[in-house]
Amino acid sequence: MAHTPHPYYPLDLVLDHYVPNTYSMKDTLTLLFSTFGAITIGSIALSYQKRNSTIRGLGNQLTFLWFVMCGFIHFFLEGYFGIYHKTLAGDQSPLAQVWKEYALSDSRYLSSDSFVLIMERITAFAWGPLAFFTAYAQYHNKPARHIAQLIISLGQLYGCVLYYATTMVEGSPHCDPHPYYYYFYFGFFNIFWMIVPSILMHNSIKNLYRAMKAALAAEANSSKVKKSK
Amino acid sequence: MAHTPHPYYPLDLVLDHYVPNTYSMKDTLTLLFSTFGAITIGSIALSYQKRNSTIRGLGNQLTFLWFVMCGFIHFFLEGYFGIYHKTLAGDQSPLAQVWKEYALSDSRYLSSDSFVLIMERITAFAWGPLAFFTAYAQYHNKPARHIAQLIISLGQLYGCVLYYATTMVEGSPHCDPHPYYYYFYFGFFNIFWMIVPSILMHNSIKNLYRAMKAALAAEANSSKVKKSK
Repeated sequence: MAHTPHPYYPLDLVLDHYVPNTYSMKDTLTLLFSTFGAITIGSIALSYQKRNSTIRGLGNQLTFLWFVMCGFIHFFLEGYFGIYHKTLAGDQSPLAQVWKEYALSDSRYLSSDSFVLIMERITAFAWGPLAFFTAYAQYHNKPARHIAQLIISLGQLYGCVLYYATTMVEGSPHCDPHPYYYYFYFGFFNIFWMIVPSILMHNSIKNLYRAMKAALAAEANSSKVKKSK
Repeated sequence: MAHTPHPYYPLDLVLDHYVPNTYSMKDTLTLLFSTFGAITIGSIALSYQKRNSTIRGLGNQLTFLWFVMCGFIHFFLEGYFGIYHKTLAGDQSPLAQVWKEYALSDSRYLSSDSFVLIMERITAFAWGPLAFFTAYAQYHNKPARHIAQLIISLGQLYGCVLYYATTMVEGSPHCDPHPYYYYFYFGFFNIFWMIVPSILMHNSIKNLYRAMKAALAAEANSSKVKKSK
């Protein structure tokens, strides 16, 4: 029986519901990066109002932008995959076309791979809302900010390590071996979720540690006072 | 070509290096639970010395026991799988026989499933040492205790959710459908890593939140003092 031809790896993957994108690669990337650009401008406009209080300096501004961007990417882009994964290979909506272009570097997104599916659903519907909450908590300097930042960053880092390692341990059979797909799509597009969460975890641990140290010292002091009474 | 017969699911799984256990199921479970018993006694003896300071009351004692037990299970039992997974189906060491018995409920441990392999390696070599560190930090009431507890608990919870869901979404084809294997091995043996981490995360978040709230209040106070000078 002949199967529908498709450009994905491994070459013997069966994707009979596949329909080629109507957008070109250039269209798809333009659509994606324009959306990222609009989110960046909105986020900077918002954080600019807190430039003298909670979002002082470039590092804090980038952190705020990061969480707003993660919120959108996780909830909408990854959420779309989490819901429509079964029919994605034949879907022509703008978000589906982005996934079909990206899947050249990882066909697990079109074959409903069970690990990718569950990890993406957790990313979309747990880390997505938590990203927006973390941005909100940073904006208003809430005590929950660094707890939320630590939780989401660890979740993202663990997810990304599993994501890379589960296909690399098999020799990356799901990726078109062309360097453009392997290094740009699979490598570059995901490496952010290794680097940034590591930095932000370090930052949150430092802040939480300082607060816990002060709390333990205060506790020790108050028990000394009690004893001397 | 005829393949080596084996008792694992799915029935068409090829495990040509499979050799049946020399221990009976009863032997294997006795070995396992005796080891757990010895760890429990050692842990209680250790925590008893701190019964009036850092490990007061049953809840704290059980938490200490939990982390010591997790350290041993993650590092030794799961570490063994992480290293020897390829030859496990034909391995007759005591730890291998435990895995071959358990694999009746999840053959992914004998087929080197890429998700189970990477998740178990992270559990063994990241969460294993971190479990011992968390027990140590609790014992000595270190400021890092609740940070470590939050990190390991989230890691365990995320790993366990992925572990259950990745096979359940496919209809649990890797498990012997007999209720003993499905509910006792696959269900009962793992559900601890859903329940306990959830409770411990809640406990850590509460403690960290209180400390961050106090830290932010102290900061606000000191900036008021500065302003009034």
